[in-house]
Amino acid sequence: MKESIANVMSSDYGYLLYLALILLSTKLFGLLTKRVQLPQVVGALAAGLVLGPACFGLVNETDFITCVSEIGVVVLMFTAGLETDIKEMKKTGLASLIIAILGVVVPLGAGWAISSIFNTEETAGMSSVLLQNIFIGVILTATSVSITVETLKEMGKLSSKSGNAIIGAAVIDDILGIIVLTVITSAAGGENGSSGGADILMVVLKIVLFFIFAIIVALAFNFLFNKWTGRSKKDLRRYVIIAFVFCLIMSFCAEYFFGVADITGAFVAGLALSNGPRANYLNNRFGTLSYMLLSPVFFASIGLKVVLPDMSLSIILFSVLLLVVAILSKIVGCGLGAKLCRFSNKDSIRIGMGMVSRGEVALIVASKGAAVGLMKDEYFAPIVIVVVVTTIITPILLKFAYKSKDEETVAVSTASEK
Amino acid sequence: MKESIANVMSSDYGYLLYLALILLSTKLFGLLTKRVQLPQVVGALAAGLVLGPACFGLVNETDFITCVSEIGVVVLMFTAGLETDIKEMKKTGLASLIIAILGVVVPLGAGWAISSIFNTEETAGMSSVLLQNIFIGVILTATSVSITVETLKEMGKLSSKSGNAIIGAAVIDDILGIIVLTVITSAAGGENGSSGGADILMVVLKIVLFFIFAIIVALAFNFLFNKWTGRSKKDLRRYVIIAFVFCLIMSFCAEYFFGVADITGAFVAGLALSNGPRANYLNNRFGTLSYMLLSPVFFASIGLKVVLPDMSLSIILFSVLLLVVAILSKIVGCGLGAKLCRFSNKDSIRIGMGMVSRGEVALIVASKGAAVGLMKDEYFAPIVIVVVVTTIITPILLKFAYKSKDEETVAVSTASEK
Repeated sequence: MKESIANVMSSDYGYLLYLALILLSTKLFGLLTKRVQLPQVVGALAAGLVLGPACFGLVNETDFITCVSEIGVVVLMFTAGLETDIKEMKKTGLASLIIAILGVVVPLGAGWAISSIFNTEETAGMSSVLLQNIFIGVILTATSVSITVETLKEMGKLSSKSGNAIIGAAVIDDILGIIVLTVITSAAGGENGSSGGADILMVVLKIVLFFIFAIIVALAFNFLFNKWTGRSKKDLRRYVIIAFVFCLIMSFCAEYFFGVADITGAFVAGLALSNGPRANYLNNRFGTLSYMLLSPVFFASIGLKVVLPDMSLSIILFSVLLLVVAILSKIVGCGLGAKLCRFSNKDSIRIGMGMVSRGEVALIVASKGAAVGLMKDEYFAPIVIVVVVTTIITPILLKFAYKSKDEETVAVSTASEK
Repeated sequence: MKESIANVMSSDYGYLLYLALILLSTKLFGLLTKRVQLPQVVGALAAGLVLGPACFGLVNETDFITCVSEIGVVVLMFTAGLETDIKEMKKTGLASLIIAILGVVVPLGAGWAISSIFNTEETAGMSSVLLQNIFIGVILTATSVSITVETLKEMGKLSSKSGNAIIGAAVIDDILGIIVLTVITSAAGGENGSSGGADILMVVLKIVLFFIFAIIVALAFNFLFNKWTGRSKKDLRRYVIIAFVFCLIMSFCAEYFFGVADITGAFVAGLALSNGPRANYLNNRFGTLSYMLLSPVFFASIGLKVVLPDMSLSIILFSVLLLVVAILSKIVGCGLGAKLCRFSNKDSIRIGMGMVSRGEVALIVASKGAAVGLMKDEYFAPIVIVVVVTTIITPILLKFAYKSKDEETVAVSTASEK
């Protein structure tokens, strides 16, 4: 039976069925989670888990699914940019920076501390135990904002003050993450004799150049696009296409030339168009493209990537502790940052919770670390568990954080929710 | 320079740039062709030619582009089904059958005749010259309707009487093509000693079963979907998703279980929803998905497939003649069929012209033929030329056919058009 399903799926037209299964299951699970007052994105994630190798193994990741899901997250961040009020963003800019810094420092330290308990013996051919343990902290720094963006959108809170702070902090978090990763891999290279200082300088230089590039291009495009679209009163399809092209090119340039995440480029592209007269029209059309094809594939693909590994008892214990540390350190770090910037207690907790989810970046960082001897292979399983659980728990946390009337009841609101 | 472009394109994020180039160029070329009073789809096809190996070689076909373009043509035919008036379709049903039959018989005979002049010597290891020449005729029978559908949509003529007749005839043409192909490959197998009669019977049986399956499933889905969507007054996203899932599953089943083209399955799925209260809403949403992503990729991918081959003088002559035969035989065959069914002269010519375009089916049939010794490899180039030219010429022919006031002026209207 399982073999005959595999035959169907690998047939020439299997991807039609793949796509049908993904669309159907993400919608059904999404409606189910909505029924129990949870965001639909939780259902979409669960659908991927059920379809993927972690459960029934019906759908495999193909090149097609990978590309569509990456375009999906690019479009998601582009529309997040479109919906952002730049004035509001500027106001929360400094706050976002502080939130991001504390949201990197606290998980970094906490990850290091917890890893130091378990990982104490030097291993031949690996970096020093100190660097290895810091590296576990580095993995915990990378927030994945897409889940939070989708959840806030669904709840209509994306343009709230806390929503703005989260998105700003997530973008900065991405930048800080690249720097921290470069520093530690350079340090590991330094142990082996090569000099890493030039690498770090190069990365920081590229990031600075990216922002100069992004600001100039965004301003220029904003001016030209608004002038061009202002010539007609009608909403024309060509506006949507040109905006899409701009979004894709900015995403590509960010990754290819500057080493910055493609979604950061897409977000900037969205920002560039956010104050124009066509922002609503664009948002509407990209929303349709998203919900009909890109988003379901993207959220399902996250679940599709999950393969649950075999683990020893010690590793299971480590996984549980690492998970708790991963969740609490972001809530505490980012929440503290927000509190320092005079956000209310309620908003501080919301911001902390919005930054909890880790995504594929954590997995990519982990693989890179394993490749250069910074991480033992047995720690992959705990990282996978952290990614999966924080991803699924974030929309649930946000749901309650934005619903509760009083911040004191957040912790216990789960029980009283209908 | 060319190498550095290739490096960019094959990078991890190259597909973002691929997609940007496709969207940008199809739109720009489309607007250019619109400026000179031609359908935008001509520009989109030209864009693919320019980007592909036939010209600059900037974009290669990847698994991603192949899948997106196939979903593109599936959605195109689904929306064609959605826009079809079933009552009108029933009225033109018999006419479509006659048009399709003559549209298969005339090109089959004409292709055989023209091939008989050039291909006269028996070759070892191949089927008899008679079968080889008939096979060239078989290749000419396969109409590719997607270009015509897009052109008629653009001109707002899809629901006209002639538009209905074309779509009906194209669907039947697809079925007849499968039967004819099976007959000739079985005959070739018969020459080599194996029995082909059972094959033909099997194919016909599967086709009959497909239509029984399609009618039952379409009626049942129509009933359930209308009942379900009737419970709410609002247009909900889930209706769009479920309709999409139905379309994909019908496409898959047509190909996988019955050997019928996926677009036929998609068309039936569209028909099943065409008379429902949500047809306009669905059409609108699928239209957005189409123009933002699927259609540009589909039409560009047609051009991307074109590789112009080296040819001898005799083959060039054959190509030109085959091209003329391919165009005229469909216009004469289908036009005659339409005339027999009491269409006006103008509508008969329109219908004939709408059936001229050949697509990838012709290439697939040719490859299959070459594989079983029914076609010499040197005939691939002429077939490619027929596919390319008929594809580009069809929207141009249709544009003039639907614009001219009098059928006598059709042939010369090119000169008088502004």
